[in-house]
Amino acid sequence: MTQFGCDYLSGCHPAILDTLVATNLEQTAGYGLDPYCEAARARIRAAVDSEAADVHFLVGGTQTNATVIASILRPWQGVIAADSGHIAVHETGAIEAGGHKVLTLPAADGKLDAAQLRDFMERYWLASGVKEHIVQPGMVYLSQPTELGTVYSKAELAALAQTCRHYRLPLFVDGARLGYALAPEVSDLTLPDLAALCDVFYIGGTKCGALFGEAVVIMNDAYKANFRAMMKQGGGLLAKGRLLGIQFDALFRDGLYQRICATAVTYAREIRAAFAAKGVAFYGASTTNQQFPILAREAAEYFQREFGFSYWEAHGEQEVLRYCTSWETTAEDVRALVDAAGRL
Amino acid sequence: MTQFGCDYLSGCHPAILDTLVATNLEQTAGYGLDPYCEAARARIRAAVDSEAADVHFLVGGTQTNATVIASILRPWQGVIAADSGHIAVHETGAIEAGGHKVLTLPAADGKLDAAQLRDFMERYWLASGVKEHIVQPGMVYLSQPTELGTVYSKAELAALAQTCRHYRLPLFVDGARLGYALAPEVSDLTLPDLAALCDVFYIGGTKCGALFGEAVVIMNDAYKANFRAMMKQGGGLLAKGRLLGIQFDALFRDGLYQRICATAVTYAREIRAAFAAKGVAFYGASTTNQQFPILAREAAEYFQREFGFSYWEAHGEQEVLRYCTSWETTAEDVRALVDAAGRL
Amino acid sequence: MTQFGCDYLSGCHPAILDTLVATNLEQTAGYGLDPYCEAARARIRAAVDSEAADVHFLVGGTQTNATVIASILRPWQGVIAADSGHIAVHETGAIEAGGHKVLTLPAADGKLDAAQLRDFMERYWLASGVKEHIVQPGMVYLSQPTELGTVYSKAELAALAQTCRHYRLPLFVDGARLGYALAPEVSDLTLPDLAALCDVFYIGGTKCGALFGEAVVIMNDAYKANFRAMMKQGGGLLAKGRLLGIQFDALFRDGLYQRICATAVTYAREIRAAFAAKGVAFYGASTTNQQFPILAREAAEYFQREFGFSYWEAHGEQEVLRYCTSWETTAEDVRALVDAAGRL
Amino acid sequence: MTQFGCDYLSGCHPAILDTLVATNLEQTAGYGLDPYCEAARARIRAAVDSEAADVHFLVGGTQTNATVIASILRPWQGVIAADSGHIAVHETGAIEAGGHKVLTLPAADGKLDAAQLRDFMERYWLASGVKEHIVQPGMVYLSQPTELGTVYSKAELAALAQTCRHYRLPLFVDGARLGYALAPEVSDLTLPDLAALCDVFYIGGTKCGALFGEAVVIMNDAYKANFRAMMKQGGGLLAKGRLLGIQFDALFRDGLYQRICATAVTYAREIRAAFAAKGVAFYGASTTNQQFPILAREAAEYFQREFGFSYWEAHGEQEVLRYCTSWETTAEDVRALVDAAGRL
Repeated sequence: MTQFGCDYLSGCHPAILDTLVATNLEQTAGYGLDPYCEAARARIRAAVDSEAADVHFLVGGTQTNATVIASILRPWQGVIAADSGHIAVHETGAIEAGGHKVLTLPAADGKLDAAQLRDFMERYWLASGVKEHIVQPGMVYLSQPTELGTVYSKAELAALAQTCRHYRLPLFVDGARLGYALAPEVSDLTLPDLAALCDVFYIGGTKCGALFGEAVVIMNDAYKANFRAMMKQGGGLLAKGRLLGIQFDALFRDGLYQRICATAVTYAREIRAAFAAKGVAFYGASTTNQQFPILAREAAEYFQREFGFSYWEAHGEQEVLRYCTSWETTAEDVRALVDAAGRL
Repeated sequence: MTQFGCDYLSGCHPAILDTLVATNLEQTAGYGLDPYCEAARARIRAAVDSEAADVHFLVGGTQTNATVIASILRPWQGVIAADSGHIAVHETGAIEAGGHKVLTLPAADGKLDAAQLRDFMERYWLASGVKEHIVQPGMVYLSQPTELGTVYSKAELAALAQTCRHYRLPLFVDGARLGYALAPEVSDLTLPDLAALCDVFYIGGTKCGALFGEAVVIMNDAYKANFRAMMKQGGGLLAKGRLLGIQFDALFRDGLYQRICATAVTYAREIRAAFAAKGVAFYGASTTNQQFPILAREAAEYFQREFGFSYWEAHGEQEVLRYCTSWETTAEDVRALVDAAGRL
Repeated sequence: MTQFGCDYLSGCHPAILDTLVATNLEQTAGYGLDPYCEAARARIRAAVDSEAADVHFLVGGTQTNATVIASILRPWQGVIAADSGHIAVHETGAIEAGGHKVLTLPAADGKLDAAQLRDFMERYWLASGVKEHIVQPGMVYLSQPTELGTVYSKAELAALAQTCRHYRLPLFVDGARLGYALAPEVSDLTLPDLAALCDVFYIGGTKCGALFGEAVVIMNDAYKANFRAMMKQGGGLLAKGRLLGIQFDALFRDGLYQRICATAVTYAREIRAAFAAKGVAFYGASTTNQQFPILAREAAEYFQREFGFSYWEAHGEQEVLRYCTSWETTAEDVRALVDAAGRL
Repeated sequence: MTQFGCDYLSGCHPAILDTLVATNLEQTAGYGLDPYCEAARARIRAAVDSEAADVHFLVGGTQTNATVIASILRPWQGVIAADSGHIAVHETGAIEAGGHKVLTLPAADGKLDAAQLRDFMERYWLASGVKEHIVQPGMVYLSQPTELGTVYSKAELAALAQTCRHYRLPLFVDGARLGYALAPEVSDLTLPDLAALCDVFYIGGTKCGALFGEAVVIMNDAYKANFRAMMKQGGGLLAKGRLLGIQFDALFRDGLYQRICATAVTYAREIRAAFAAKGVAFYGASTTNQQFPILAREAAEYFQREFGFSYWEAHGEQEVLRYCTSWETTAEDVRALVDAAGRL
């Protein structure tokens, strides 16, 4: 029985595995200088519709966030993020270890918005008479989808990007689960939109079908020149870098990445509908592959035990659980879960 | 006319200046290894009633906070502080530059309390199942008095210290304005109490009558051995270290430090009473030398122009100002200001 | 034709690949908390003959070095290394990025020795009267084999370890290519010896048959408690951590790790003998799988073109090349190369 | 009897002290925003003959070096320095604590030269095929005079500056003892020359007559904008910043700085001549206020005891001592010492 606790419980999509097996004995240059990485870069440049995109592959999300942020900020600067942002709460202080404060803004649904950002910049920074005594906002970090599974629309991100440009704040989008936000019914924000609006963003592999790997897309020329040095210093320049190239080459061949994530989102919504039909409320307004049903204790125990839901937090007498779908979720798994929800 | 905008607007107390002049041509060893530093250390050990106290002199507060915190924390740890704490908001990210997150707790009056700390440790840390993904609380920082001029009583600090010990969190007290909290009518928390309750604290000189200088008192043996190396690395080992020794020797001779600060507090309260008599409300419950009257715009402009009050923040249609007293405030200054308040 | 330029040009040993394929669809916990990591840890504890060993898996060498060193040193300390040490020259300042100086000692053959270490500690540290002005030696880093392919004997490492203990310097051994030093004809220093002599060491996978991965073995209790937090902060806690467990489980089943490395060493030596028989000199005294023949320009070009030797450095009119063997080197490859060397 | 062990054994030049006393009770803005700092900046801009110079005041040398270097370098970069450079050996790893490697070049007399720098850049950097694996040279640090008291001529510094520009390396000159190199018989390199050739340099006060203080002069616009934030973060923004302004205002009034240092140099040379007349050799070719006579043990003990010479290092059976002159050295002191040298 597939578990629903997380979207990175097993290995990788079979198409990726097949290519890893097929290429295993080939010998190539290391550190991302091989033909597979080159091919994957070309596919991603095509997908984001920009020949100017610099593409680099790293192994994991915390590493990617820390490396990108360290490559952009100067010592006296910090990064603005939602208070629930991954860099603010789940990376063991990796950003601070690089010397930078995370300047958090409250975000009930996990999202920043342009007006809030503008207000913060006016109040905290421009109105301040003692700028050298406070941390200078140096960039904005957000994630698509957010930690809570919510997403930005194209208009919302465009407004944020415009505000960022107004205050000369580079915009970095963490796309650890980006695939799940690319389905048209989830958001109208496309990969080319991200390329047009962001200074840097990354396309997550680990949680979207790969064994591991995140593809950083650098659009702003100012951050391109020394990114590989930053990667190496941060321990993120994989010796057998082709392992990342092979995986992203497979994910971006024939739309596999978007397809498997879209299916997972469809499944997650079917399950949500089944719970909702029984009156179950959800925590937050996630429209993607992570969902947070609020269940009475007994029901919570049942879904944890039988379907591997994970515990999220208490909610009065009830409990918030989390279920995720992913490329490995099958129609049968979903049917079984929907049936169980129907018996509530 | 003395200005009331701040407590470090002029040079130093005449007794300090006289000693600096008298000793100017003496030649001594550098870096705090001179007889004046030794004498000042002895006076401070006597004042805190502990022969075991290690005493070091640094130049300024941000430097002192950054040096002490870096000497205690390990890379994966952060420091707990009130959200208005100086290290959280007014040090340009100096703590993060040292690699550490400031874990802030809400504190309306600028003070942490033991129950809040206990709750945070239970909820954030002990209840967490993913400890390696979050910043480990590694110490507690607070200041006496706080940024808002409020103070901890002996019982309050004892409760916090006990909670710290329970969770094995070293306790560090920033005493940039400590002198103003030592008057008995302000707090029953004495220097020996601080020595008994803290792992490390510092006695501020810059804002309490010295040209510059902060005296760090290390009580916990674990943090003594390499503190001078930490000072040097942080740029805080003054070449002519005796300048610090001479000043603290003077400040702790015959109770000068406590005396000048107590007088300043008395003056601040007299002024407060004069404003309060005219119905002026105050922001916060400061009992020390910094006070925050809330004034209508016209009155605010007057006191800024005539008495050098500083602008703090807007308060609806009114304005919060700040006035400070210090060793240089005279009875005449106070009388003039009290008279002006009386004309409101 | 197999290339000899490097020992990480292709994927992984087939036994590893088979297990990755066989387990691909299993669902397990993330971040190294899965049964495969547990099994691999057990195998490594057995191989190093110590139940007290803490074993952690990271992805790459620079990451591993930076994480281990940051977990041991305090801010005012540096790490002693040979001037050719990987951390001193090939990690883009990753150790300095963590705040620590690499204190280098000259090492013509890539090796530190106990007398040199003792002399350095006496002269640089103990004889210094200004200890707070210089970087405190906080640990010793060396690699087995070294960057130049040379190895430490058990007696040599025991002498170094004793000197380290005398000066209270933790000893960390980088074993990126450790497998190649484990063949009895190469060194009498065994895995249990390393466990007995080191505070921390690591067993390299990336260059010894794995897709990627390094197994850190922590012997000193003082460095165990928070290592996972340090890993996470450094971006080294792999989400699908089992990928590392699966690989090391395979490598340490039935002695595969030692066997494939021993074969590679045998091949490297056969090739060396063939060159030496034609009067070719070698740079350094490598006894492991990396060898550095010194060739005239024309011969150098030939072996680079036909066998993928890599360019190392100029040597007067001649050139130093490097060839490596690995698990993927075949007897046929070796025969072809030996024949070519014989035609010099 | 004046001691000769160091040039910062006493307080400050009387002209400075007088001004500190005279201004003690004035109230001014803090953090360097006062009229005295403004006046001192104007005097320094005049002295370096550039209206474009940004001038900032810090307290000490290690703090200044760490702050300037951190404000210029990016994370993947290091700073080139002579192996005897202060940042390389006497600052407890302050530069590494900021995340940067010190890339040292051998320098027997304490000086870098242009050819050596060019050779290093060609060999280490431009010829390297693995740039992302090594630390990128990001700036050049040197000091005038050097740690050994030697000086750069204008032609030498111009050649270095040209080489720096060629390789796009900002040039930073540490002038902790700059005053002693400004006497025409010592070097033809003037303050305006430094301003024309350097990106940043500093004019040392602590060792040249001030109580403390270093004046940073930033010529390159690229490093001006956020320097005060960098200072604050590094603990170097003195609250009563005017103390620095007052001192440099006094030092640069009527050429006091140059005059007292020139006299000290004259004295140091007279003493050197007296020793040399008796056949005493010197370590290094210092032409400034620090001199390093090589003496037999008995003579060494005598001059340490009677004149406060400091021990530098062993020199076979003999000992290298150091004597310094400064603003406080008197003609009588010199005469007594010259007489004693004459009795050797």
